[in-house]
Amino acid sequence: MSTERVVAICGGIGGAKLALGLYRLLPPRALTLIVNTGDDFEHLGLHVSPDIDTCLYTLSGLANQELGWGRADESWNFMAALKSIGGDTWFRLGDRDLALHVERTRQLASGRPLSAVIAGFADRLGLNAEILPMSEAPVRTLVDTDEGLLGFQDYFVRRRCAPRVRSISFDTAPDATIQPRARAALLAPDTTAIIICPSNPYLSIDPLLAVPGFAEALKGATAPVIAVSPIIGGSAVKGPTAKIMQELGVEPSAATVAAHYAGLIDGFLLDERDVALAAELSIPTRTADTLMTTLDDRIRVARAALEWAYQLP
Amino acid sequence: MSTERVVAICGGIGGAKLALGLYRLLPPRALTLIVNTGDDFEHLGLHVSPDIDTCLYTLSGLANQELGWGRADESWNFMAALKSIGGDTWFRLGDRDLALHVERTRQLASGRPLSAVIAGFADRLGLNAEILPMSEAPVRTLVDTDEGLLGFQDYFVRRRCAPRVRSISFDTAPDATIQPRARAALLAPDTTAIIICPSNPYLSIDPLLAVPGFAEALKGATAPVIAVSPIIGGSAVKGPTAKIMQELGVEPSAATVAAHYAGLIDGFLLDERDVALAAELSIPTRTADTLMTTLDDRIRVARAALEWAYQLP
Repeated sequence: MSTERVVAICGGIGGAKLALGLYRLLPPRALTLIVNTGDDFEHLGLHVSPDIDTCLYTLSGLANQELGWGRADESWNFMAALKSIGGDTWFRLGDRDLALHVERTRQLASGRPLSAVIAGFADRLGLNAEILPMSEAPVRTLVDTDEGLLGFQDYFVRRRCAPRVRSISFDTAPDATIQPRARAALLAPDTTAIIICPSNPYLSIDPLLAVPGFAEALKGATAPVIAVSPIIGGSAVKGPTAKIMQELGVEPSAATVAAHYAGLIDGFLLDERDVALAAELSIPTRTADTLMTTLDDRIRVARAALEWAYQLP
Repeated sequence: MSTERVVAICGGIGGAKLALGLYRLLPPRALTLIVNTGDDFEHLGLHVSPDIDTCLYTLSGLANQELGWGRADESWNFMAALKSIGGDTWFRLGDRDLALHVERTRQLASGRPLSAVIAGFADRLGLNAEILPMSEAPVRTLVDTDEGLLGFQDYFVRRRCAPRVRSISFDTAPDATIQPRARAALLAPDTTAIIICPSNPYLSIDPLLAVPGFAEALKGATAPVIAVSPIIGGSAVKGPTAKIMQELGVEPSAATVAAHYAGLIDGFLLDERDVALAAELSIPTRTADTLMTTLDDRIRVARAALEWAYQLP
């Protein structure tokens, strides 16, 4: 499969697990990741890109396994000093992690596009994959809750997903459009598969679909588009997906996610525990053990998704 | 001496030694420090104020004694991570130290004046002294050398004072003026003494004198103005003062420094090793052991300067 060229669409932690599986499975430079930047925000004057950084750290082996975010072997002396001078400490930035935020902010201020900043980091970290933001201009995820309209990090980190979600929307900059290389990768005739990773559909994948031109490119792709379910047996593997689905008034099941992606995907990879749902769905499904605990799990799920994609008509 | 109100004028390391002596000697809130910000620069997109921070750290007991700059008990994980992504590492920022730069930059961007940012830090660090920047707007020290015109940190840190200095100048923002509280402190009738600390006269004190309104306020002060010599026996205690004086074509001696301050000071505190120079000088002098190695030395020199100031006519 030396001519594989796979595009994966993902958010943060959950999606990055499968992205790592794909990265380890595929030959060098065969993987393009298009990553949610709806979570990006300015904090302490720094441009923070949580999902991009999770992908950078996960693929380069620097991710913090215990925390599930940030960098391994991290120290927190910046935060301690910041606290001592009265700074804002609800969003934790590790000493090593901070380097990406400071350097990204500096490069963006100098006029470098976000994609070029990220490509430079990926290159320095020795990655053999292309990591692209969904757009260069901001598209910001806003969560309308029973506590009012919250920015994504306010909702997710500061309030720990506690408020009840009423709706999710995206504040799109006037010049926001799908990142050109991302669009080209989706539409390229030699792209062999497009995988929507098991990220939260509402918080992590919808921001991508909200970017002008993104859904159109996905619909126009000649490569098969496979989504991997983030819901197993009615529960999210990690994070607030099931809770949010309940609050949004939809059944927290893999079938709901499949329906959410209707019109965009050619196949839906269900967990084997949800095999009974396959009959309900009007799109092609396949089942596999999609729980990803170890690195081998990640590679196995990546293989299941790709092998199936290549069999789709 | 409960009604003492002392103003000290200082740069970084050398000056901060005497400032600490004054701080420990005087009753709480009796000391106002007016600090050089000609060394301030933007680095990695952050506003760095080296002399201000040296004073904050020195007075609060957080200064790194081994390095002579930055914070004690420092870690360098940010720098290591920055290096790994290709960032600029010639100016070392410790993990804890970084908190001041990030928070200062954030507050300045929000429109807070530099003096208010610093006052907030001083308050959080528990300081019972007022620390004021010489001006709110930038006045930047430029060093013309045989390698061309260099910004202060380029000259001082990146090039380690190696280039030959031809002249020193100050790039003054159109709205730069002496910080109003600094002016008021210099001119206040109840100010009992003004001490020019033994900082480098050309690199650390001249920037203050270049601020519009500063020299006038010093000349208009009713309190006695005493300068403490940064040169002992023809050598600078620390730093490039003597080298720069040679390059500027003046004799590296305490007498040259006294002449440099002519018209601004009422007395010059010489080191006892330079007692022979006293006869050369046309302004009142006093000698003392001005070498400051220990904290007791700092307090002793502070006491010598103040006791003499109070005896001046």
